[in-house]
Amino acid sequence: MDFIKTFFQEMGAMLSIPWSFVILEVIGTLAGAVSGARLASSKKFDLFGALIVGIATACGGGTIRDLMIGKPPFWLEEPIYLLACIFGLLWVFVFRKVLVRQNNTWFLFDCIGFSLFNVIGIEKSLGLGFPTWAAICLGCITGAGGGVMRDILINEVPLIFRKEIYATCCLAGGIVYVLFLRMGWTPEGCALLSCTVAITIRMLAVKYHWSLPYIKGIEEE
Amino acid sequence: MDFIKTFFQEMGAMLSIPWSFVILEVIGTLAGAVSGARLASSKKFDLFGALIVGIATACGGGTIRDLMIGKPPFWLEEPIYLLACIFGLLWVFVFRKVLVRQNNTWFLFDCIGFSLFNVIGIEKSLGLGFPTWAAICLGCITGAGGGVMRDILINEVPLIFRKEIYATCCLAGGIVYVLFLRMGWTPEGCALLSCTVAITIRMLAVKYHWSLPYIKGIEEE
Amino acid sequence: MDFIKTFFQEMGAMLSIPWSFVILEVIGTLAGAVSGARLASSKKFDLFGALIVGIATACGGGTIRDLMIGKPPFWLEEPIYLLACIFGLLWVFVFRKVLVRQNNTWFLFDCIGFSLFNVIGIEKSLGLGFPTWAAICLGCITGAGGGVMRDILINEVPLIFRKEIYATCCLAGGIVYVLFLRMGWTPEGCALLSCTVAITIRMLAVKYHWSLPYIKGIEEE
Repeated sequence: MDFIKTFFQEMGAMLSIPWSFVILEVIGTLAGAVSGARLASSKKFDLFGALIVGIATACGGGTIRDLMIGKPPFWLEEPIYLLACIFGLLWVFVFRKVLVRQNNTWFLFDCIGFSLFNVIGIEKSLGLGFPTWAAICLGCITGAGGGVMRDILINEVPLIFRKEIYATCCLAGGIVYVLFLRMGWTPEGCALLSCTVAITIRMLAVKYHWSLPYIKGIEEE
Repeated sequence: MDFIKTFFQEMGAMLSIPWSFVILEVIGTLAGAVSGARLASSKKFDLFGALIVGIATACGGGTIRDLMIGKPPFWLEEPIYLLACIFGLLWVFVFRKVLVRQNNTWFLFDCIGFSLFNVIGIEKSLGLGFPTWAAICLGCITGAGGGVMRDILINEVPLIFRKEIYATCCLAGGIVYVLFLRMGWTPEGCALLSCTVAITIRMLAVKYHWSLPYIKGIEEE
Repeated sequence: MDFIKTFFQEMGAMLSIPWSFVILEVIGTLAGAVSGARLASSKKFDLFGALIVGIATACGGGTIRDLMIGKPPFWLEEPIYLLACIFGLLWVFVFRKVLVRQNNTWFLFDCIGFSLFNVIGIEKSLGLGFPTWAAICLGCITGAGGGVMRDILINEVPLIFRKEIYATCCLAGGIVYVLFLRMGWTPEGCALLSCTVAITIRMLAVKYHWSLPYIKGIEEE
């Protein structure tokens, strides 16, 4: 146990270098924007529509969180996030014919994104004095809210409510984060472990087609 | 008139006992969560999706109100509301085969919920210094917003815009509330009268299939 | 150049008379409410639903902006906007059979609305200390957000993402506004020029069927 702790703390210390953290955050934003812009374009949304759906996917969860904790949306305070979304749209345009071949890469980036956004949401909420359970909720909203907003904008039933389980991954990652934080780990170590847990569950879920059951036997009225 | 006033004030005084009020609020939350989780499950949303739709139905109106009046969402400050939603999901799971037989009970609980949320929204807004007409609007949003949020999440046209009239009931209840508050009644008495009026109108509307008319003769472009 | 500046500043000075500004704002609100109530009625929304969709169309963009900048929604502080929306609903009811003949007038009023809301959003955001690029974003949200909210409520894919280009007009108007503000023009002159630019582009777009392209060659998964 101590070995694991030391390993993750050292990794965490390495990761605490601001620029590496920012790079990961931008990679996550990019992944969200690419996924949103791609889906929107496949539905014949114009360039502007694709950009907005990209921004909603990448920044929507954090925006809902910021409104709930009483802060202005993070992407209005620092231009890097919008720039990443514009870059994501350009990427979709340039690589439109070969995007399918990049699927694995973008899936990995998307995993980095949602698991990291989850941790950022928890940290931001804890820092403002929200109780632990509320911070975990706000982490899930940060990590999973963008996908819901995307699906509302493209007028589809949110994927996350029927197929994807990444909200469950956020929940698991969030519980791991606050648990190890209570045990005295550094925030960086907790973040690394939390992301590892969330990403691992999601990858296993995709590989083995895991999904949550639904309540059967209820008829529509 | 004085007799009615005394009667309702005495009833109100009884109801002002905090735990009875909280019980009613939790019953309303439960009713919203059950209705949301049930509808979501009938559309094959998974357990997580059903929980989120339940939370949106029960707490969505109050959340929009809180964002508008500049407060954090009430369900992030006190865990009882989320617990009630989780309990509502469990209820739907356990009683999935006999839910139809409980329809009348849940309809009553739902009535308690929307009419009480309406009053809570008005009180909270008045307390923050919003003008009376704005407080009535915020009451309607609290009472009726959850249903709209539920219908957006399950990707349907909001029921309240075509069939249900409970926003109208909220409006009537809200006007009664502020009117009798101005006439010097206690908040508890006003709350009781307001809920009675709103619930009565809704029950009559359901019984006699009342609905608002729509503007005919406009063609879709 | 100096001649143009003087001309617009004089026009701006004229327009800075508060009541004329308020009249324009109310005309814009009215146009949004009429467009929303009309669309909702054509889909058989009842009177209440038509009113709410009208309010969302007219005031939705400003509401999202106010939530983002941490203010209560503007229409809860001053009853004129809600009254304009109620009046818009009445107008749709009274003139339901001849609304098609008023199309050009309402299109003009709608143009005044979105371009003016854009400028108001920018001014409000700059006044609160948001950076210029963020203020332009918030202007676009103010001018174009109502239409998105309307389309979500009537459960359709937002028109603005596929056909209309008025977000692009907002962007152009916003850039013009801050550019000329930096060059020392009065806010009134900048507002007039910005609205002129935004309205002109939109009218040309409608006349010549301009629309943004979409990214082709992406298949739905």
